[in-house]
Amino acid sequence: MKTYANALPLALKGCLNLHSRIDTLIELAVDEDAPMGDLTSEAIFSPEHQSRANIIARQDMVICGLDIARKVFERIDPDMTVSLQAKDGDWIERGNNVIVLEGSTISLMTSERIALNFLKRLSGIATLSRTYADAARATGTGVRIVDTRKTTPGWRSIEKYAVRCGGCSNHRASLSEHVMIKENHITAAGSLTKAVKLAHDYAPHLAKVEVETENMDDVREALQAGAEVILLDNMSLEEITEAVKLINHRATVEVSGGITLEAIADYAATGVDVISVGALTHSAPAADFSMIIPRD
Amino acid sequence: MKTYANALPLALKGCLNLHSRIDTLIELAVDEDAPMGDLTSEAIFSPEHQSRANIIARQDMVICGLDIARKVFERIDPDMTVSLQAKDGDWIERGNNVIVLEGSTISLMTSERIALNFLKRLSGIATLSRTYADAARATGTGVRIVDTRKTTPGWRSIEKYAVRCGGCSNHRASLSEHVMIKENHITAAGSLTKAVKLAHDYAPHLAKVEVETENMDDVREALQAGAEVILLDNMSLEEITEAVKLINHRATVEVSGGITLEAIADYAATGVDVISVGALTHSAPAADFSMIIPRD
Amino acid sequence: MKTYANALPLALKGCLNLHSRIDTLIELAVDEDAPMGDLTSEAIFSPEHQSRANIIARQDMVICGLDIARKVFERIDPDMTVSLQAKDGDWIERGNNVIVLEGSTISLMTSERIALNFLKRLSGIATLSRTYADAARATGTGVRIVDTRKTTPGWRSIEKYAVRCGGCSNHRASLSEHVMIKENHITAAGSLTKAVKLAHDYAPHLAKVEVETENMDDVREALQAGAEVILLDNMSLEEITEAVKLINHRATVEVSGGITLEAIADYAATGVDVISVGALTHSAPAADFSMIIPRD
Amino acid sequence: MKTYANALPLALKGCLNLHSRIDTLIELAVDEDAPMGDLTSEAIFSPEHQSRANIIARQDMVICGLDIARKVFERIDPDMTVSLQAKDGDWIERGNNVIVLEGSTISLMTSERIALNFLKRLSGIATLSRTYADAARATGTGVRIVDTRKTTPGWRSIEKYAVRCGGCSNHRASLSEHVMIKENHITAAGSLTKAVKLAHDYAPHLAKVEVETENMDDVREALQAGAEVILLDNMSLEEITEAVKLINHRATVEVSGGITLEAIADYAATGVDVISVGALTHSAPAADFSMIIPRD
Amino acid sequence: MKTYANALPLALKGCLNLHSRIDTLIELAVDEDAPMGDLTSEAIFSPEHQSRANIIARQDMVICGLDIARKVFERIDPDMTVSLQAKDGDWIERGNNVIVLEGSTISLMTSERIALNFLKRLSGIATLSRTYADAARATGTGVRIVDTRKTTPGWRSIEKYAVRCGGCSNHRASLSEHVMIKENHITAAGSLTKAVKLAHDYAPHLAKVEVETENMDDVREALQAGAEVILLDNMSLEEITEAVKLINHRATVEVSGGITLEAIADYAATGVDVISVGALTHSAPAADFSMIIPRD
Amino acid sequence: MKTYANALPLALKGCLNLHSRIDTLIELAVDEDAPMGDLTSEAIFSPEHQSRANIIARQDMVICGLDIARKVFERIDPDMTVSLQAKDGDWIERGNNVIVLEGSTISLMTSERIALNFLKRLSGIATLSRTYADAARATGTGVRIVDTRKTTPGWRSIEKYAVRCGGCSNHRASLSEHVMIKENHITAAGSLTKAVKLAHDYAPHLAKVEVETENMDDVREALQAGAEVILLDNMSLEEITEAVKLINHRATVEVSGGITLEAIADYAATGVDVISVGALTHSAPAADFSMIIPRD
Repeated sequence: MKTYANALPLALKGCLNLHSRIDTLIELAVDEDAPMGDLTSEAIFSPEHQSRANIIARQDMVICGLDIARKVFERIDPDMTVSLQAKDGDWIERGNNVIVLEGSTISLMTSERIALNFLKRLSGIATLSRTYADAARATGTGVRIVDTRKTTPGWRSIEKYAVRCGGCSNHRASLSEHVMIKENHITAAGSLTKAVKLAHDYAPHLAKVEVETENMDDVREALQAGAEVILLDNMSLEEITEAVKLINHRATVEVSGGITLEAIADYAATGVDVISVGALTHSAPAADFSMIIPRD
Repeated sequence: MKTYANALPLALKGCLNLHSRIDTLIELAVDEDAPMGDLTSEAIFSPEHQSRANIIARQDMVICGLDIARKVFERIDPDMTVSLQAKDGDWIERGNNVIVLEGSTISLMTSERIALNFLKRLSGIATLSRTYADAARATGTGVRIVDTRKTTPGWRSIEKYAVRCGGCSNHRASLSEHVMIKENHITAAGSLTKAVKLAHDYAPHLAKVEVETENMDDVREALQAGAEVILLDNMSLEEITEAVKLINHRATVEVSGGITLEAIADYAATGVDVISVGALTHSAPAADFSMIIPRD
Repeated sequence: MKTYANALPLALKGCLNLHSRIDTLIELAVDEDAPMGDLTSEAIFSPEHQSRANIIARQDMVICGLDIARKVFERIDPDMTVSLQAKDGDWIERGNNVIVLEGSTISLMTSERIALNFLKRLSGIATLSRTYADAARATGTGVRIVDTRKTTPGWRSIEKYAVRCGGCSNHRASLSEHVMIKENHITAAGSLTKAVKLAHDYAPHLAKVEVETENMDDVREALQAGAEVILLDNMSLEEITEAVKLINHRATVEVSGGITLEAIADYAATGVDVISVGALTHSAPAADFSMIIPRD
Repeated sequence: MKTYANALPLALKGCLNLHSRIDTLIELAVDEDAPMGDLTSEAIFSPEHQSRANIIARQDMVICGLDIARKVFERIDPDMTVSLQAKDGDWIERGNNVIVLEGSTISLMTSERIALNFLKRLSGIATLSRTYADAARATGTGVRIVDTRKTTPGWRSIEKYAVRCGGCSNHRASLSEHVMIKENHITAAGSLTKAVKLAHDYAPHLAKVEVETENMDDVREALQAGAEVILLDNMSLEEITEAVKLINHRATVEVSGGITLEAIADYAATGVDVISVGALTHSAPAADFSMIIPRD
Repeated sequence: MKTYANALPLALKGCLNLHSRIDTLIELAVDEDAPMGDLTSEAIFSPEHQSRANIIARQDMVICGLDIARKVFERIDPDMTVSLQAKDGDWIERGNNVIVLEGSTISLMTSERIALNFLKRLSGIATLSRTYADAARATGTGVRIVDTRKTTPGWRSIEKYAVRCGGCSNHRASLSEHVMIKENHITAAGSLTKAVKLAHDYAPHLAKVEVETENMDDVREALQAGAEVILLDNMSLEEITEAVKLINHRATVEVSGGITLEAIADYAATGVDVISVGALTHSAPAADFSMIIPRD
Repeated sequence: MKTYANALPLALKGCLNLHSRIDTLIELAVDEDAPMGDLTSEAIFSPEHQSRANIIARQDMVICGLDIARKVFERIDPDMTVSLQAKDGDWIERGNNVIVLEGSTISLMTSERIALNFLKRLSGIATLSRTYADAARATGTGVRIVDTRKTTPGWRSIEKYAVRCGGCSNHRASLSEHVMIKENHITAAGSLTKAVKLAHDYAPHLAKVEVETENMDDVREALQAGAEVILLDNMSLEEITEAVKLINHRATVEVSGGITLEAIADYAATGVDVISVGALTHSAPAADFSMIIPRD
């Protein structure tokens, strides 16, 4: 079983444009924020009134969601000029422009909040992920930080993209791929070994089988049963160290359980391959942006 | 202009069932988490295998999203028995059951994460809102804490519901209702007074006109122009105090600008009517739940 | 409380392109009129066969829906050339061209009826609204004519836009914004005063509270309770005059109840601020158009 | 070629439940009228507050849309009790109850306008259709009144159902079925005869070919070319009489062109088989209903 | 009643672009094959990496679906260059290029299977249809081969288009158009004659009435009742010959019932007008394609 | 690396109800087959007319799609009684009833074709898969037959379910899960080894990496690079035998390339683990069913 020699790609991989459902999410957003247009702007401006505006980062951050923001502006008004000043995954310092816009003032004002709401959430996740990725890289162990399925319903695909933009990796995307045998499965099935056997028979030949374990007996049984990945859930650093020694590279080792940024180095030192962190997606604070129409 | 004598309803108001688009969000969630069912559970259990499970709060919280969770379970399997142990808006202590489930083990396992992801986010928002609502109530001023349009795209309607479950109030729901004249509008229009005039002529007779102000001159001009609500944005406590005196109940007064929980009492003491807090929706940490199939 | 000094904007405001759901409505229309294309035209013409066509107003009218018509043509065939000869809100005399088209004959014939059906309904509403707006303007009172929620399901947003194109104003767009306390609410709540109190506590600080009244006692109670808008429903001109005097600008005054075009002047003379007319949207006769491929 | 011995079925035929897209239309309607529920009712009533209400016809009418109304109530609240007091197609006299409702007051108030908007439009069409159907029946000729494709986009299927509820018949439902060769086709094709020939070759063997004619030469050419149905468009009664004699039952004869209710007898007397009337769907005035919560 | 002098158009008719729902089908396909993009390609290539690729026919075939394939590529990446080398309905020999592509390697790889899956199925149907159309033409009888409603749910419109691309004709598109009285209808109604009578009264004047018959008595009754089309279902060649003679051009004659390619000539020789073949759509084997990125 | 000791589960696994998008597919099917109901049945029967009907297998088959069929009937008419006589995956002999129905005759007739079209396609795939599964089992080698991504767009999830109902296994479900490095990837990347390296770094830790190889050099390189699965594409039996020996259980071995039912035994004898067969989904002939309303 390999460890991840280069777990943190320096350059972003992946193409947000290829994800499905982004248009659905944008449509929902337009529908909830501007079902009948922007009353205020329509009252004040004629459709011909033009403005220029800048979208500015109001904190240091890893930017994420620029292509979605562009799609929002184009959805509201295909005639708007949208000029991206950065690429998803870039490190942006406070005060920098990330998008320059030009077009109908009504369109600019109507799009602002929708676009910013996408940017805020995705950049918040990417920025938090970056702190974890940096902490992992600093350990020199090749340990990989991964997300979980604790994502915002409707947003999984793009939240996992934001995690990668921050330099972390993804766990499985859904219940329909790979096998992850958890405590509830084992309780209901009555036997860890039996559950692994059934999974190996049923799952596609490309799927690995991961088993959640709570103590050394579970670890031994999972290893014996042929689990390709063993998850050590909520174990102490001592138990983890013992389990890593016991497993001895015969399976990939993942740990989880409320692991904080500060604890990354200690967990990495145990020799585990993967640390999963739910907070990357479920509790990242929003990044701060504003749109400014400059006074001439 | 009135202040809010009873800004914090003791009992929750509103019916989540009546919101549109919840089914769309659930469908997106099922589609991303179980596009082809739950591989692991299908491998291990026959469709006839039955279990009981409990959903347990793992922290103190205001619970929110129980009806959505019920809809998730019914979407996955109409034959599951779903028994809610609480009502949205209830205060739940750590370790308590909030839902008891009984049905096909495969269905239970397939629904778990989708339902929990809704509960986590909405209860997180309701719980954070409750701390703000309590702080406001403690001031005895009748000040009202409201949310903003800084919500998760696709989730506005239910995030604003969660804010109410926590005892705070809602700001406007979309650009299409009410008038909110911001700095960018004034810059582009060239005149605050002109913008208010155009808005009064154009907007429905039920819509109030709110104007964002940055200094005392703005406040004076807004008042003169007939703004029904004046937003003091990023002003100091001294400036706010001065503005409240100047306005003297001729308009409702709202303040905003990164106002923290700790600062609520100070802002309330200035005599403002409304404090808007974006963090209620954009940066609430997720609440913690787990689903347990008990060992017999 | 203000009256509407300039209730009838001379130039149309608003941007139909910014409304959500128009694409959905077009897709439904294509799906019902051409689920498998146009059998007749496909039988007769090759895809390469080209024609020019004109869309002609067959009556005097306020034109409305040109941008939707353009979207219909582009949906059917992005290669069609669509040249609008007018702007929404323009007064068009019988016999004038409103759109000039050029492209594949099959595409022209397939789009014709779908585009015309949008134009017919929206221009019908705009034209009827214009007669009311003109009647109101002629009174010199600043009275405002507004629509109601009696719209065609699925069409609210664009029917309310057509009302504005005709020079009238909009009432609230949905149940989710503003407060409108009707007789049924009062009956079920048991008290007008209590209903207003609850609404003021619960509703967003930007929402006004309107109360429907049926007699002078109701009016007095509504005023006392602090209603910002009072609706006099189905009252006689005498009662309305009395109510306006009683209210004395302490609330905006709206009247409703089958008010015909001929009666606008009499109602305006009572001093009311707003007259709501359901017929603008629910019973406007369709405007008449035809598409002609000229013989060379 | 047959004439329609019994063109006006006494009992309604057809099952609205079987039409597709009704749920889509209801969802759009809920989304536009109650995107976040009913603010007023939520402010005033607790979710447990119950009421009874009646939906009452405020004019004589042919009722239509009762099943859609029921679906609206069930969509808003599956626990509401909905008791239909009539069947689509029934003649209802002013003041009669058509639906009795019982359930949560919030749900009743939230559903009211959406349900009534469906009933108003469909019953308006059915009622107008009934006047035409009665006029046709009175002639004793077996002439059939049919609708056109001049329907509200998104509503074709249910508007055509309303026409049948009023006792008239349907023309073709879409461009994709049957062949209808119009003036524009003939102009662009260069020859009526050639167009009919191509249509016979291409169209499914179940499709008839109808040709629009403007004068006696067209009629002769259409007959010669083998048209199964001949439409006499905007001809005088004299021309129609002549054309009917010329055709002599070798094709079905349809007339169209702004034919009013008063003119039905004269047109029927010419011996035509079918009279098409666009106004049935595009200009029917809404029928009048109200929902009343009775005071005890 | 006419027979089809030129039942097999030499050039394809119809415009796939005009069909509704194609975008829905493409969206479903993208959603199931690339919900989060192409993991493999994103791992290996940067978004800037460009390639050229050819889509090649790996068997002789009638090509069908090129416009859908183009839409797939444009959906995945609007910047891809897509150059069609043929038109739907063309006969393509094995080894020929049908599409040349150039663009981002990730986009090419992500689109490949989705586009090929559309081409495979539609070209399979067109190719099988062509063998039937050729067999029919070879008889010199003018007999027409038509499809049935035995299509893949969601695909009816485009499968019927593929049938036409192969030179066959379409039967009715749905239950909502034309009348087709089958054995089950007759059993449930109790009488063939009564069923035809009711259909003539109810159906639009453009709809023909077809009756399914199983023996000579049925044929006589259908003819007597005025059926415009008579279907001889699962009859022997002798019975068919007798029925054709009996009907004697007073109705169009269709035969059905597992009729193989080899039997076309025999059935055509009986003098029937139409042969319907379900296998054209329900059992056509997929056509074979591959996409190749050439080594330089 | 394991071989599949029990590759053919005796009892069906999986729950079709849990798949997303089935309702979408049913809605598309209803929309295309009955957009305005069933004209024929509505003409002949009153909505109250009741019938009983049986759905009968007209050939020996593995039945698949019964739950979807049930959903179709319930979508058309929730009051219909639907009694399944078998379970998906059961072997059904010709002439047996698989569903007994009772309800409104109009509803029965309207649902028939839609339900049968689902059953025909899915049972066709399950039946073909069963022949392959039986052939594999007969070899006694534990070889596993798997499907491919050559599925009908929109149908992947349910076609892969049908494959499992027939006793075969699934390959990966989409491009977004697992890594599959094909010839085009290697050509564009310039090196097999480099591609595998990049994939291992980027892909989730649960994903295996499969590499397509065309000759023994490729196999050696893939093994060296650490591929977990090696696909031998279009190799001869001799080459495969050599490759299996070379790989020697260090990777799972898959073969593909037009492998027919007759050749399964020969391929299995080489010692490969997995045989992939595209024809299971792309070219399975439809299974034959009919619905009969019995004469009393």
